[in-house]
Amino acid sequence: MNPRRHKTLLELQCELPAGELRFDSDTLQSHSGDKWFASRLPDAVALPRSTRSVATILRFAHRHNLPVTARGAGYGYVGGCVPSRGGVVLSLARMNRIKEINSHDFVTVVQPGVVTHHLHEAVEKQGLYYPPDPASRADSSIGGNIATNVASGSVVRLGSRTHKNKTGFDLARLFVGSEGLLGVVTEATLKLLPLPPFRACLGVGFGSMKGAARAIRAVFGSGTLPSALEVADAFTLAAAQKRTGSKLLTGCRAHIIVELDGQEGSVRSELKRLEEMIRAMKPVFVQRGYGAEDCEKFWQLRREFSYALRDTGLTKLNEDITVPRGRLEDLFCFAEWLQKKHHLPVACFGHAGDGNIHVNVMVDKMQPGAPRRSEAALDDLFRQVLAWGGVITGEHGIGLAKKRWWPDAASEEVRALHRVIKQALDPKGILNPGKFV
Amino acid sequence: MNPRRHKTLLELQCELPAGELRFDSDTLQSHSGDKWFASRLPDAVALPRSTRSVATILRFAHRHNLPVTARGAGYGYVGGCVPSRGGVVLSLARMNRIKEINSHDFVTVVQPGVVTHHLHEAVEKQGLYYPPDPASRADSSIGGNIATNVASGSVVRLGSRTHKNKTGFDLARLFVGSEGLLGVVTEATLKLLPLPPFRACLGVGFGSMKGAARAIRAVFGSGTLPSALEVADAFTLAAAQKRTGSKLLTGCRAHIIVELDGQEGSVRSELKRLEEMIRAMKPVFVQRGYGAEDCEKFWQLRREFSYALRDTGLTKLNEDITVPRGRLEDLFCFAEWLQKKHHLPVACFGHAGDGNIHVNVMVDKMQPGAPRRSEAALDDLFRQVLAWGGVITGEHGIGLAKKRWWPDAASEEVRALHRVIKQALDPKGILNPGKFV
Repeated sequence: MNPRRHKTLLELQCELPAGELRFDSDTLQSHSGDKWFASRLPDAVALPRSTRSVATILRFAHRHNLPVTARGAGYGYVGGCVPSRGGVVLSLARMNRIKEINSHDFVTVVQPGVVTHHLHEAVEKQGLYYPPDPASRADSSIGGNIATNVASGSVVRLGSRTHKNKTGFDLARLFVGSEGLLGVVTEATLKLLPLPPFRACLGVGFGSMKGAARAIRAVFGSGTLPSALEVADAFTLAAAQKRTGSKLLTGCRAHIIVELDGQEGSVRSELKRLEEMIRAMKPVFVQRGYGAEDCEKFWQLRREFSYALRDTGLTKLNEDITVPRGRLEDLFCFAEWLQKKHHLPVACFGHAGDGNIHVNVMVDKMQPGAPRRSEAALDDLFRQVLAWGGVITGEHGIGLAKKRWWPDAASEEVRALHRVIKQALDPKGILNPGKFV
Repeated sequence: MNPRRHKTLLELQCELPAGELRFDSDTLQSHSGDKWFASRLPDAVALPRSTRSVATILRFAHRHNLPVTARGAGYGYVGGCVPSRGGVVLSLARMNRIKEINSHDFVTVVQPGVVTHHLHEAVEKQGLYYPPDPASRADSSIGGNIATNVASGSVVRLGSRTHKNKTGFDLARLFVGSEGLLGVVTEATLKLLPLPPFRACLGVGFGSMKGAARAIRAVFGSGTLPSALEVADAFTLAAAQKRTGSKLLTGCRAHIIVELDGQEGSVRSELKRLEEMIRAMKPVFVQRGYGAEDCEKFWQLRREFSYALRDTGLTKLNEDITVPRGRLEDLFCFAEWLQKKHHLPVACFGHAGDGNIHVNVMVDKMQPGAPRRSEAALDDLFRQVLAWGGVITGEHGIGLAKKRWWPDAASEEVRALHRVIKQALDPKGILNPGKFV
C-alpha cells in the first residue's frame, strides 16, 4: 500500500469506534476473496457494528475516492467481493442481529450479517417460514448482494414492511442483487409466510435423464406446484455414491427430489398421486419421506452433491445458468455433448422447477491445456444458453467470474443503462470497482 | 397549441405510418385523462402499431423536447396518464397482440395493449394461469405502468423468459411500475403458472368487522395460504345490497371471501376445515362454492362493490393504501373514526391477504366545504397509515392524485434517488412530465 493511502486509512480509523478498521495480515488475507479462485489483498478491512459506521466509511470513501468492496460471509461463487482495486473491504459480518420477527405482519427485520440458517431456525420457532434455502445456508449471510446505502454515505430506507407497495420507483428491487455496485445493505425487512404444517418428499432414481425429464414434465402437467423440484445427473450421482457409500444410487443415471408442503392431509394425498404417476414410469427406485425429519434426509443428500464433486479433486467451475423451463432436456443433452467435445467431465444438478441448473465443468488444473479447454467449454455453454433465451446466471451474479461474458449476456443498450445508473448513484465509482459495469 | 409545436407535430406525423398520429378533437378528448377527475387535452395522440413507431416517436420527442405521456387503456385511478404539460399522448391500445403462449416455458409474450381479461381467457384455454386479476380486468390492459423503452428512443430488452435471472441490475423491476416516467413498454414477457385444476370459495357474512378480522387471523394461523382473501365493510355491503337487491347481506356489517385453489381433493378438505373453523365463530351466514363457475359468482359480487359505491351518486376517492398485515383491524377502526370526525362516509374493501385495502372516501361534491373536508380526511388517513409503517399506494401509483403526499411518503434521500435516476434515464424530462418526480 502506498504511504499516502495508509495515512488516509489511519484517518478513517480515527473516525470509527475501536476495532472497526483493521490492517493485520490475517484479517486482510481472510477478506481477499470468496469461493471463486481470484483474490487480492485489500488495504484495510472494516468490520462495522452499526449503520452509522457504514455511513461514516462511505462518506469518507466518497470524499477520498477510496474503493469500497462490501461483503457478506464470503460464500459467493463469482469473485463478486474480491477487492479488485484494493482499498477497503467492508464486511457486514458483525452486523448480525435479528432485530424483529413479527408474526402479525409476517415480516422479519434483520441485519445483513445474519446467517441464513439462523434466521430459518428463529422464524420456524414462531410458526413462520422464510423460504430461500441456499445449499450454503449454514454459512452464507442474508446481506449478500443486497444494498441500501448509496455511495455518498447517505442512509435511505427503501421498500416497506407491507406486502405490497407502489410508492415511486421499485428501488429496493434495483438494489437487491446489484452486487455491491450501488450501495451497502445495513438492514433488510423480509417477508415471511406461515410455516406450512407438513412437508413430504419423493426421491426418485431413473436409469436415464430422459426418464427424469419426463417425470418433471408430468409433475407440472398435473397442475401441481411443488415447493421444490431438484434434479441431478449421472456424474453427480456417481460422485455422491462414492462420498456417501450409498448402494441406493446403483444403476441410476438421474435423480429427482419432489417436495410438497401444506396441510398434512392434502400433502399426503397429493404425494401419493405423484408417486403412482411416477412409479408407472418404471424408475429404478422411489423413496418417500413424510414429515420434516424424513425430508431433511433427502436434502442432506442434495447438499452432499456439491461436496461430492469437490471430493473428485477436480476444480469445479459451478455455472448457475438458467434456461427457459421447456429447455431442461435440451440442456442435459447439450451438457453430454459438451463433455465429449472438450474432454472434460460436466456435472449438472439443480432446480428443475425454475430452470436454474448448476452446470459444473470439472477441470484438472494440472493437465496441460485444461484451463484453455474449460474456457472454451464455457464459451460454448453460455452461447447455447443465451441462444435458447436463457441467462448465464440465475443466482450468483456476474462478479469477476462472468465478466468476460457480460457483453454477450447484455446488449449494448442494456449495458449503457447499467452505466448511467451506476454513474448516477456512484458518480466517483468507489463501490466495488473493477467488476462488470 | 402554439403554431410552432403544431408544425413540429406535423413533421412527426410524416415520419409515422398513416393514421398513427391524430389531432381530431374527439381523439384528443378521449385521451385527456383516466378514471381520476383531472384532465388536460394533449396536442396530439399517437396510436402506434409497432415498437418501431414507438421508438420513432421517442427519438423525435427527445430531439424536440416534446412531452410524451404513455397510456394503456386509461383505467388508472390516480391521473397518472394525464398529459399535464400537453404534448403527445402515446396510446399503446393498438399494440394488442398476444404473440406467444408457451406451455413448456410457462411464459407468454404480449404487447402492452392486450386487455387483461383476454389474456386470462387465452392462457386458461391452454391449461395455464396468469394470476393478476384486477377488478377492471375487462377493460384495463397489461401495459399499464410498465416501461421498457428509454426516453432517448433506444429499444432495450430487460429481464428474460427464464423464471430466474441474476444478470446485472434488475432493471425490469425498475421499469415496472415507474408510471411512464422512465420509458414505454412495447412488449412484455410474463410468467405463467399451471392452471390449478380446482377452485373453491367461502363467502362469509359477519355481524361486525371484529368478527371478520378474527376469522382472517384464524385462516393464516392455520398455516393456510389462500389464493385470495377479500374483505368488505358495512358501508360497502349496504351499497351492494341496494344495487343487487340481495337479501343475503341483511344484518351483515362485514364480509369476507376466502378462495383456495389446487388439487380437487385437497381443496375440498381444506375448505371444509376452514368452514368448520369459521362456523364456530357464529357468523351471520356462510356460503360455499365448489368449482370455477360457483366461485365466479362470489367474484361477481366482489366486482359489484366498486360499481355499487358509484351508484350512491357520491364521488369515490379510492385510496389503495396498504398496511402491515397486523394492522388490518386498526385500519377498520380508524376508518370509522375518520367518518365521524369528517362527516364523510368511508367505505373499505380489499385484499386482506396482503393488507391492501381500498379506503373509499365518499364525497358529495355539491355540499359546501366537502372537498376541503375530504382532503383533510385523506391527510389524516395517510398520516396514520405511514405512522403504522404502511404505504399510501399499493397498486395505483402516485400519479397526480397523490402527488401532494409524495414528500410524506418518501424521505428526502429517497426522493433524491428518484431524481438522479429520472435524470439519468430521461435527461430532458420529456416522459410524463408534471408528475411526482
